Amino acid sequence: MTVAGFAVDLGGTKIAVARIVDGVVSARRQRPTQAGADLDGQLQSIGALLEDVNYRRGEPLGVAVAGRVDRDGNWHAVNTATLSAIAAAPLGEALRERFGKHALATNDAAAAALAEYRLGAGQGAYNFAYLTVSTGVGGGLVLGGRLIDSLTGLAGHVGFTSSQLGKDRCGSGRMGTVESVAGGRAIAAAAGMGDAKTVFAGDPQNAAIHRSEQAVAGLIGDLTAILGLDQVAIGGSIGLAPNYIAGVRTHLDQEPALFRPPVVPAGLGNDSGLVGALLHCLEST
Amino acid sequence: MTVAGFAVDLGGTKIAVARIVDGVVSARRQRPTQAGADLDGQLQSIGALLEDVNYRRGEPLGVAVAGRVDRDGNWHAVNTATLSAIAAAPLGEALRERFGKHALATNDAAAAALAEYRLGAGQGAYNFAYLTVSTGVGGGLVLGGRLIDSLTGLAGHVGFTSSQLGKDRCGSGRMGTVESVAGGRAIAAAAGMGDAKTVFAGDPQNAAIHRSEQAVAGLIGDLTAILGLDQVAIGGSIGLAPNYIAGVRTHLDQEPALFRPPVVPAGLGNDSGLVGALLHCLEST
Repeated sequence: MTVAGFAVDLGGTKIAVARIVDGVVSARRQRPTQAGADLDGQLQSIGALLEDVNYRRGEPLGVAVAGRVDRDGNWHAVNTATLSAIAAAPLGEALRERFGKHALATNDAAAAALAEYRLGAGQGAYNFAYLTVSTGVGGGLVLGGRLIDSLTGLAGHVGFTSSQLGKDRCGSGRMGTVESVAGGRAIAAAAGMGDAKTVFAGDPQNAAIHRSEQAVAGLIGDLTAILGLDQVAIGGSIGLAPNYIAGVRTHLDQEPALFRPPVVPAGLGNDSGLVGALLHCLEST
Repeated sequence: MTVAGFAVDLGGTKIAVARIVDGVVSARRQRPTQAGADLDGQLQSIGALLEDVNYRRGEPLGVAVAGRVDRDGNWHAVNTATLSAIAAAPLGEALRERFGKHALATNDAAAAALAEYRLGAGQGAYNFAYLTVSTGVGGGLVLGGRLIDSLTGLAGHVGFTSSQLGKDRCGSGRMGTVESVAGGRAIAAAAGMGDAKTVFAGDPQNAAIHRSEQAVAGLIGDLTAILGLDQVAIGGSIGLAPNYIAGVRTHLDQEPALFRPPVVPAGLGNDSGLVGALLHCLEST
């Protein structure tokens, strides 16, 4: 399959759009997200950026979004602190109306998982998990060659599983989740600093970072018990920080052999959401 | 599809064989498992029982086994306390040699999950989990109509995920697993009694039982975060004990709405492993 078309990555802080040729981003535009804008406002921003990369209505368009997209194409924030005006917005329908029938929305981490499986660090795996560790912890699963979806769009939100190290509530409303220990917000809070970047810059051996690595190792063990994973890739600004994956592996080494799949860095960098959203669009229509 | 053929359920305490007609067991024989017997010894017992239900070589034969079956058909004990003589035994090959090419081995809980999905409590679900709570805690997953398998055969061993209530090691070698809190062995140990049956008979409100229910509720929340489950069925001698599922639901009610799929009793009783093993055999060959 030729991977060619257009993609959008609509996140909490920025909107990126791209023209993709042969699975690679060939032109890219981005601008900050207007967090308070409603669905129509977001689509107007997207439309303006797409014009800049010569998109024409009807061409394949994959849209990666933070939050969950249910089977009816409705878009829900999972963390109400970001994109506050989005609640059960009919994204799928609005996209098709504005951009034609070849437009499809996908959760951004699920899209990245599919891209890594087809073109990046998950190639050749049978049961593959992609984990992203940044402000929060998310992911996507490709099992037996198929991206796992679900009626609610919750599938892949692996940061919302419980951690033996967890004591606090995370944005999902659940107690003691992996995200409440391992995410950048949690690292910053535990270290008493403004953001995780400052923690990593100040002391890469900070205990809060080690607890994050340990929680992610526990998550990988749990996912392997449930799914029999044979490959795991980690991405995200924290996941790809120097020594982070090595730290995860050190904790994972405490597990019995059967629960220790290979853990590698994601291969596609920041473009994986864009490329994966287009892949999912092309494979679904 | 007509569900007709033969099935074997080879567990730690008994071997059952059955003739199945229209998805229902029409003839059944069983005997205690010789725990120390090697693979050949187990197959001889199975062959003798099958003769009694008029099985002839070459007919479809599904074999449900405790432990994991990897993609090469090799059989591994996951808890070395049961079936001690079985370690990486070439079960798939041995079955085909003795019973013909239509013989296929499947993990017993995975088989039960498939049976519940097609004919029992999982019918109509999109993402379905079957959990069995007895001496240990196991399960199987049917996602988007497909039984999840894996290279190692570990997929579905959901009792080996970590629990926030867990402190002890279970048979898998992992620390603080759901099984180490929720399984019958754990309930008996926590209550200071010989077996879980005695605990349930003595005091159905025993704290060890409530902890088991709570650990299973946490597991359901975790599985739902990962897989977006829309239906869960619970089976097993403890899972189907009076008030157990109600207790699980009470704990699950503490979770945010998105993490609370319907939880129902398994519908097929003790025959689900037999029926599911045959279903998997018929669907795979």
